[in-house]
Amino acid sequence: MPVIDDVYPSRLEDRVQLLERVDPVVYRDAGIAGPLTADELSTYEEEGFLVKPSLFSQSEISELSEALAAWIRSGELEGLEEVITEPGQGAVRSIFRVHQLHPLYDRLARDVRLLGAATQVLGSDAYIHQSRVNLKPGFSGKEFYWHSDFETWHAEDGMPRMRALSVSLALPKKFPFNGPLMVIPGSHRTYVACVGVTPEDHYKQSLKRQEYGVPDQDTLRTLTERGGISAPTGEAGTAVFFDCNAMHGSNGNITPYPRNNVFFVFNSIENQLQEPFCGRAPRPEHIAARQRVEALRPLSR
Amino acid sequence: MPVIDDVYPSRLEDRVQLLERVDPVVYRDAGIAGPLTADELSTYEEEGFLVKPSLFSQSEISELSEALAAWIRSGELEGLEEVITEPGQGAVRSIFRVHQLHPLYDRLARDVRLLGAATQVLGSDAYIHQSRVNLKPGFSGKEFYWHSDFETWHAEDGMPRMRALSVSLALPKKFPFNGPLMVIPGSHRTYVACVGVTPEDHYKQSLKRQEYGVPDQDTLRTLTERGGISAPTGEAGTAVFFDCNAMHGSNGNITPYPRNNVFFVFNSIENQLQEPFCGRAPRPEHIAARQRVEALRPLSR
Repeated sequence: MPVIDDVYPSRLEDRVQLLERVDPVVYRDAGIAGPLTADELSTYEEEGFLVKPSLFSQSEISELSEALAAWIRSGELEGLEEVITEPGQGAVRSIFRVHQLHPLYDRLARDVRLLGAATQVLGSDAYIHQSRVNLKPGFSGKEFYWHSDFETWHAEDGMPRMRALSVSLALPKKFPFNGPLMVIPGSHRTYVACVGVTPEDHYKQSLKRQEYGVPDQDTLRTLTERGGISAPTGEAGTAVFFDCNAMHGSNGNITPYPRNNVFFVFNSIENQLQEPFCGRAPRPEHIAARQRVEALRPLSR
Repeated sequence: MPVIDDVYPSRLEDRVQLLERVDPVVYRDAGIAGPLTADELSTYEEEGFLVKPSLFSQSEISELSEALAAWIRSGELEGLEEVITEPGQGAVRSIFRVHQLHPLYDRLARDVRLLGAATQVLGSDAYIHQSRVNLKPGFSGKEFYWHSDFETWHAEDGMPRMRALSVSLALPKKFPFNGPLMVIPGSHRTYVACVGVTPEDHYKQSLKRQEYGVPDQDTLRTLTERGGISAPTGEAGTAVFFDCNAMHGSNGNITPYPRNNVFFVFNSIENQLQEPFCGRAPRPEHIAARQRVEALRPLSR
C-alpha cells in the first residue's frame, strides 16, 4: 500500500505533478573528503551532473573492455538472470551485478575515483544499489527514453530519499552521434510524479523498453526550456557522475560506433531500501540490492 | 531488364561491391558562375558535402515554417499521394513535390543561393528531381538508416549518372542530439552496389523504412574508417549541400526539438531519367520527376 507520508509520491494520480526536491544534492554537512574539487561539487550541485574527461586511462579501459569481451565469448553468461538481451536479436545488452560477478569490475566499483567521489557527495559510506555493463551496439542501438532513475527506484524498489549517485563510464569514445547519455541540466531539482499504476513484474519489460514511470511531453518541454540538454562527449574512460533524480535518456545509434558503458549506482548506507512505494513486490536483488547490504571497502591503490 | 553497359550496377549480385565513381563531383569544365567560392567548391568536391551556416535568415525561415504549419493545419494535404505519414501514428512526416504545391517553396527552389549553387556544381541548367519537406518530430523521431540516394535514383528511377546535388535546409536549429543529417566524408567517391532484387512498389515502404538498397555493416565500417562521420549542426537556415552519392543517414530523436527540413534534389538537365536500371516500373512523378521536365528559372531577387 502507498505510504501516507511519502515525500515523493508517484504513479498514484491521473496527471503528472512537478514537486520540488526536498533533499540536498551534495551532503556537505558530513564533511567527507574526496577526489572532487569544491568547483566540481558546485557544478554537480547546480547542474545535477559532472563530467570527468578521461578519468580512467586508455590502458585501464582496454583491460576492462577486453575482459568483458572475453567474458561474453566464454559463454558463462548464458541463462543468467543478470543478463538482458536485445529485443528481437538475442545479443547481450546489459549485464547486471557486474561488481559481484567479475573481479575487475569489483575493483572498479571500489576505485577511489568512483567510490571516493560517491561518498564525498553522499556524505556517508555507500553501497552499490545497482551495477551493470551496457552494450549499446552500433548500427541498431535502440534509444532509451527520458526518465529519472529515482522515480523508479523509489516507486519500485523503495529507495526512501534522494541520496544516491550514478556514474556512467564510457568504454569506447563517446561521439555526439553514437547515442551518448543526454541529461537535462537542473532537472534533478524537480521530482516528476508520473502517471499510472505500476504493473506486476514491470521490470522484465522496463529494462528493454520504458513505458511506465516516464514523464509526459509537456513536462519534458518545461524541463528543457529551463535547462536545455547536455550530451557530454569524450574519450574512452570519460566518466559522467549524475544525481539519482537527473532526467536523462539516450538516442538510438545507427553509426558503426558502439556505445558501451559501465554503470554503477552508489546509494548512501543511510538510505537503504524499504518496501516499494508503488505497493508491488520488490524487484530482484540483481536489479536493486536490499539483502546483505554492506558499505563498500575502498580499494587501496 | 538490366542495361548491359550500366556503369553503376546494383541489386544484381548476392554480395556488396564497392566501385569507383566514374563521374566528376564538380562539373568545372562548364565554367558556370555561381555563389560558391573556389574553396567551397573544393570542400564539396573533397568531402562530398558543404555546410553553409545561416544561409537563410531567421525571418525567411520563420516565414517558411509558419506557411508550412498553416498549410498542414488547413487540411488541404489530407489524402494527397504526396504526403507520407509516420508509421503507427498518422502525423505528417514528409510532403513531396513542395516546390510545385506551394508558391513559397517554388520561390525557395529557384533562389540563387540554392539553384545558383546547384547549376555551378552541376555545370548545366538544373531541374528538381525530387523535393520535399521532412517533419521529424521531437520525442519520437525515427532514424533513417545509411544510404546513397544515387543508388536508389539509379536503380529505381533510371537516373543515368552522378550529376545531381541535394540540399537540406534546416528549419529549426540543428543540435547534435536531435537527429541531424550525418554524412560520411569522402563516401561519394565510392559506389556501393547493394544486394538483392528490388521488390515491386518498393517506394511505398522505403519512404517509411529502408530495407533494400542499403549497404551492409562491413561496407559502412570501411567507409567510416576512411572518412569518419560528420553531423553538421547550426542555426535555423543552415543549409547542407551534398552529392547524390554521399552516404548519409540520421539517428532517431527523443528530444523535444523537432528536426524539420526542406530537401531539394537538383538534377542536371543533361542527366534526365531513363528506364529504371532495376527493371521495375518507374516510381511516381512526385518521387522522381520524368515528365514535362524543364530547367528551373532563377528567381530574380
